[in-house]
Amino acid sequence: MRNFKATAAFSGTAYHGFQRQEGGLKTVQGEIEKAVYKLIGERVTVNGCSRTDAGVHANGFVFNMFLENSIDCRGLQFGLNGVLPPDISILSVEEAPPDFHARYNCRGKEYIYLIHNSEIKSPFYADRMYRSWYPIDEKKLDRACKAFIGEHDFKAFCAASCDKEITVRTIFDYSVSREGDVVKFTVSGDGFLYNMVRITVGTLLFINDGKLAEDSIPNIIASRDRARAGKTVPPQGLYLNRVFY
Amino acid sequence: MRNFKATAAFSGTAYHGFQRQEGGLKTVQGEIEKAVYKLIGERVTVNGCSRTDAGVHANGFVFNMFLENSIDCRGLQFGLNGVLPPDISILSVEEAPPDFHARYNCRGKEYIYLIHNSEIKSPFYADRMYRSWYPIDEKKLDRACKAFIGEHDFKAFCAASCDKEITVRTIFDYSVSREGDVVKFTVSGDGFLYNMVRITVGTLLFINDGKLAEDSIPNIIASRDRARAGKTVPPQGLYLNRVFY
Repeated sequence: MRNFKATAAFSGTAYHGFQRQEGGLKTVQGEIEKAVYKLIGERVTVNGCSRTDAGVHANGFVFNMFLENSIDCRGLQFGLNGVLPPDISILSVEEAPPDFHARYNCRGKEYIYLIHNSEIKSPFYADRMYRSWYPIDEKKLDRACKAFIGEHDFKAFCAASCDKEITVRTIFDYSVSREGDVVKFTVSGDGFLYNMVRITVGTLLFINDGKLAEDSIPNIIASRDRARAGKTVPPQGLYLNRVFY
Repeated sequence: MRNFKATAAFSGTAYHGFQRQEGGLKTVQGEIEKAVYKLIGERVTVNGCSRTDAGVHANGFVFNMFLENSIDCRGLQFGLNGVLPPDISILSVEEAPPDFHARYNCRGKEYIYLIHNSEIKSPFYADRMYRSWYPIDEKKLDRACKAFIGEHDFKAFCAASCDKEITVRTIFDYSVSREGDVVKFTVSGDGFLYNMVRITVGTLLFINDGKLAEDSIPNIIASRDRARAGKTVPPQGLYLNRVFY
């Protein structure tokens, strides 16, 4: 048995997240496992680096799996791309040590969140970005978001349904930038609570709109109160961008 | 009755082209006419600047229509965007003289064709670009494509099913450029025969791959023989970019 580490990109629009689910719901994991079976006839379990929510995309999602087959990495990559649906792509495949596990060995992740900042919708961005017509001051938000950086208890930025006992996480970096009418939020950290990225973006939008003060983030963190933070922005703007090992 | 000139962008993936068709096929024209009825209760006929094929997109498709309603341009634009599906957007609306007709007054059009030049598919480009893995020499093709510029009989670059008697058209400009792994073909002219843009791109790809010589375009034009030109590249890379009046 060899252990393969693979990086995938996918558009999450058509899927109920990455992780295989009961009831035959279409998931990215399910599609990859089916593709492996189609290609080499092995029933494998794909270990993903994280769950992702329905509608969330990935530019660099890492998974590993153990195979009996003697196929080489390039053959596996191109073979899988041939049988996978058009909205899932394998960007790279390499052999990994037997003890490598995409989730347990993960040291951090980088997410991006894209907002189409325009009064007028784009037919090409519908499932790829959130749209917000109110002008975004990306310089102001780039200053404000720095308050997320560091080790903090992010309880206030976790969905109410979050069942994690330990809500302390370390944010490595956070930035907000603009290219034309697209505003990009980039955040990396050692781990993220349920909906955490989307709640930080929603909180920054509240700061943009004047519903929260520019310097309010440290107080919201200290409160550990979800009700003090902004709304959860929708999934279609979120991309798992990179995974660190 | 006032005459409204509107510019739309749409993703053509879900549609059987722009023009309304028999048999209830989903078309962009049909969706816009339904949206007008939903918004102001008028049954209108939308005059499009051209047909487009199934799967072809538009960044700036112009149409006109006559309305009784006293709605203003901005109200019409934002109202239509509210009721249209996410893959059709109205970019602008203005009042036009009563004799303005989007097709008859059209003096030319600009198309772009996008190729994802990569061994590895992108889940985000599937319906938006054609993919070609063989490395494209965009500088060579940018030189070769200049032979299309000017007034020529483009019979060799017209689908076999083309029923136009006059096959002379004037190409204003043609260029090929690259941004990262995306190669862009930009062509403008006073009119285009059926599949003409897609056959010129397919011919340039034959030149890229060495199936045709770099200087072969004048001879292919002179031959008036469809069999001498390259293949017709698929619709999903094609965008009606601008319309000239």
